[in-house]
Amino acid sequence: MRWERRDLSSEHEAGKTEELSAYFDHTLLKPDSKVSDIVRLCAEARKYRFATVCVNPFWVPAAAEQLAGSGVGVTTVIGFPLGATSTFSKVAETRDAIAGGATEIDMVINVGALKSGMYGDVKSDIEAVVRACRGRAVVKVIIETGYLTDDEKVKACELSQSAGADFVKTSTGFGPGGATVEDIALMRQTVGPEMGVKASGGVRDEAAVRSLIAAGATRIGASSSVAIVTGGQGTGY
Amino acid sequence: MRWERRDLSSEHEAGKTEELSAYFDHTLLKPDSKVSDIVRLCAEARKYRFATVCVNPFWVPAAAEQLAGSGVGVTTVIGFPLGATSTFSKVAETRDAIAGGATEIDMVINVGALKSGMYGDVKSDIEAVVRACRGRAVVKVIIETGYLTDDEKVKACELSQSAGADFVKTSTGFGPGGATVEDIALMRQTVGPEMGVKASGGVRDEAAVRSLIAAGATRIGASSSVAIVTGGQGTGY
Amino acid sequence: MRWERRDLSSEHEAGKTEELSAYFDHTLLKPDSKVSDIVRLCAEARKYRFATVCVNPFWVPAAAEQLAGSGVGVTTVIGFPLGATSTFSKVAETRDAIAGGATEIDMVINVGALKSGMYGDVKSDIEAVVRACRGRAVVKVIIETGYLTDDEKVKACELSQSAGADFVKTSTGFGPGGATVEDIALMRQTVGPEMGVKASGGVRDEAAVRSLIAAGATRIGASSSVAIVTGGQGTGY
Amino acid sequence: MRWERRDLSSEHEAGKTEELSAYFDHTLLKPDSKVSDIVRLCAEARKYRFATVCVNPFWVPAAAEQLAGSGVGVTTVIGFPLGATSTFSKVAETRDAIAGGATEIDMVINVGALKSGMYGDVKSDIEAVVRACRGRAVVKVIIETGYLTDDEKVKACELSQSAGADFVKTSTGFGPGGATVEDIALMRQTVGPEMGVKASGGVRDEAAVRSLIAAGATRIGASSSVAIVTGGQGTGY
Repeated sequence: MRWERRDLSSEHEAGKTEELSAYFDHTLLKPDSKVSDIVRLCAEARKYRFATVCVNPFWVPAAAEQLAGSGVGVTTVIGFPLGATSTFSKVAETRDAIAGGATEIDMVINVGALKSGMYGDVKSDIEAVVRACRGRAVVKVIIETGYLTDDEKVKACELSQSAGADFVKTSTGFGPGGATVEDIALMRQTVGPEMGVKASGGVRDEAAVRSLIAAGATRIGASSSVAIVTGGQGTGY
Repeated sequence: MRWERRDLSSEHEAGKTEELSAYFDHTLLKPDSKVSDIVRLCAEARKYRFATVCVNPFWVPAAAEQLAGSGVGVTTVIGFPLGATSTFSKVAETRDAIAGGATEIDMVINVGALKSGMYGDVKSDIEAVVRACRGRAVVKVIIETGYLTDDEKVKACELSQSAGADFVKTSTGFGPGGATVEDIALMRQTVGPEMGVKASGGVRDEAAVRSLIAAGATRIGASSSVAIVTGGQGTGY
Repeated sequence: MRWERRDLSSEHEAGKTEELSAYFDHTLLKPDSKVSDIVRLCAEARKYRFATVCVNPFWVPAAAEQLAGSGVGVTTVIGFPLGATSTFSKVAETRDAIAGGATEIDMVINVGALKSGMYGDVKSDIEAVVRACRGRAVVKVIIETGYLTDDEKVKACELSQSAGADFVKTSTGFGPGGATVEDIALMRQTVGPEMGVKASGGVRDEAAVRSLIAAGATRIGASSSVAIVTGGQGTGY
Repeated sequence: MRWERRDLSSEHEAGKTEELSAYFDHTLLKPDSKVSDIVRLCAEARKYRFATVCVNPFWVPAAAEQLAGSGVGVTTVIGFPLGATSTFSKVAETRDAIAGGATEIDMVINVGALKSGMYGDVKSDIEAVVRACRGRAVVKVIIETGYLTDDEKVKACELSQSAGADFVKTSTGFGPGGATVEDIALMRQTVGPEMGVKASGGVRDEAAVRSLIAAGATRIGASSSVAIVTGGQGTGY
């Protein structure tokens, strides 16, 4: 969705819940999650009409089966959470995930290559995943803001955009820090209004969500999505 | 190496340093590590004659090049650190890493499948990686003790052993907890004397290393390896 | 479809054409085929309501795009035509093809391993592809009859069936020989009535098709499908 | 090796056999070859000091084991023989083959894409395999001359060279036609003196080999290598 500046804080009222739900990638990435947790996650996503669930690659086929016909997508994470796998491995993971039913691919940028100034490698890594998704899945690039200076955040967004990704995304939830209004504003300013921006990591209540959206986010990743859209307070990722 | 009980604490003296070095996978897995960090890591491993360096998959070709002819191996990590990727992806990562010069493969067990009682999946996941390494690389299975009960630790070791892995290993360094003497003793007791046991996560001084070896470890993963073998105190992984 | 013996030769009349069409994998596997040939193949399949088109893996995304919403499936070929690639490569090709839109997977059995008596390898090769298709695509195993003795044909069918494949198939069209009534009868007898049997290679007119179906075939692979269902005589594969 | 024009026909004498042997990729690609055939092939290559054996991917680990320490390399074939698999699959096959011990990679160009004028796809397909081999294996591009016009042969050579391949190669041995002196001369003229040119397909006696070398070939692929270097006449590929 194209992002436009408007005062979302004034829209904070009953009746807006469903609209808000459409922003969420309902997320469960803890490695010790069980199959029963995945089943519950999918049932919640179906009930609250979240955009997608976000699960680790191993659970993609199970989630796709749970969500068949629901209109809820399946996001998975690639090169996650360190971003330090080879491009070949990221592409293999991506094709495998799509074959298993994934509809959105959240890949982690190669942070170490970025820090080393190896911009060609960073960009071609993203391009290869974009190519692997063409016509089949949305691509989000997690730039893992917690490791980056503002200049590096801008560079990461520029490389992601020029590589053809659909979204930039703040955080894995496993690194230092999470989504901040400042980072979302910087990312939105860098990529312009057409590209998606996803805020993730430590998003736990509706006020935070509305601030992030006001700052430029068009998607929210959270494990507390249900608590948030029902007016509560989450505790997780 | 076959493990035998002996009092290593009495061997703590000058002249034993080199012997101790052979226990170490000199480790750098932080996602924001730069190429210059990898080069330094390899130079240290060469100097202190560590068994291997342990790096993320993206850095395997660089490390293999740095270490050519040195006798120091290249360990990399697969499905790391969450263990929640598909078996196909773990095999693809493994074959790619071996093609790039990796000599040892530290794979993360599928913790969620283990927790779900999906033992067939856990075992076949390990078997597939073992098959992908046959005759080409050593396989260590990281059971990520911090997420497991003692019963689960035993089960993870049994599955790893029956799947044909060469080592069991305690921790990724990215999850809760690290190597403890108790866990090493339990793992050694479970797998018997012939299989390797690697202690990793939070190992920071020589006393700790000697206790872990006394308890049954035959390999140590540490980022503080240089400090440890030169009698200092490390701070890292 | 479950196969039952009946006299199809008596059904040879106008009005049966469409029913016959549903048997066909409309096939174009020549390596020098152009994109325009693929587009034409898909248009024909749509017009005559063939079961699927059968194209080389490179053309799967283009064929899937051409056939979107048509009800015509996309078959592709794996380890084709020699069958002598590794199991890992066959699985990688399969997952990639499914991600690209393939709905049926015609894999070539490992003929050399079969000839060497390495039945465990032959079976696990098929099992791995079956697993890679689970819930996503139909699996046919090309046994390449032209290289096999009758005993080997029976063995190949038994291994395919016990590995969980959906179909056995006679020929690649690139090896010696093609589909014969005798081979189809032998294959049908071996696998029983529930499994699919596909006749391919040198099938060029309606009489041949009806004889093959009478002998047990439930699918026909042909490049002359249009000529055949319109009462003509084909020339190709 | 850099190619220079000289009159090799005058060097046809005893004592030159060993020098000639170094030109050969001793080849066995028939799909019904057994493990015993591969073992024999490797023994012959060791005895006659051929440059490499050339086998299907499934047999790479066996060949690498047979040839360990011999100085004879292991060539395998990728996307073979149709060239119509996806770039991802060619890269997966390549990495898998290198991990298994392959030292030279003979990939088939995407003939259909070339015929369709999709030169960008043809080049990026080769580039991806070249990248997958960097520092690990030699890359030869089989242009399958039998399907090509002279203009297409020139284009295929240019694309291969600009993509960074080490060799261009005439034929798979499974398509129409094989190596001709005219094609070798054209290919050599196109790529200049520094790139390798491999003649393969129907090469059966020493006179033919010497003519091909005189025309510009720096490598010969043949199944009749033993007969050729011992002064006999081969019958095979």
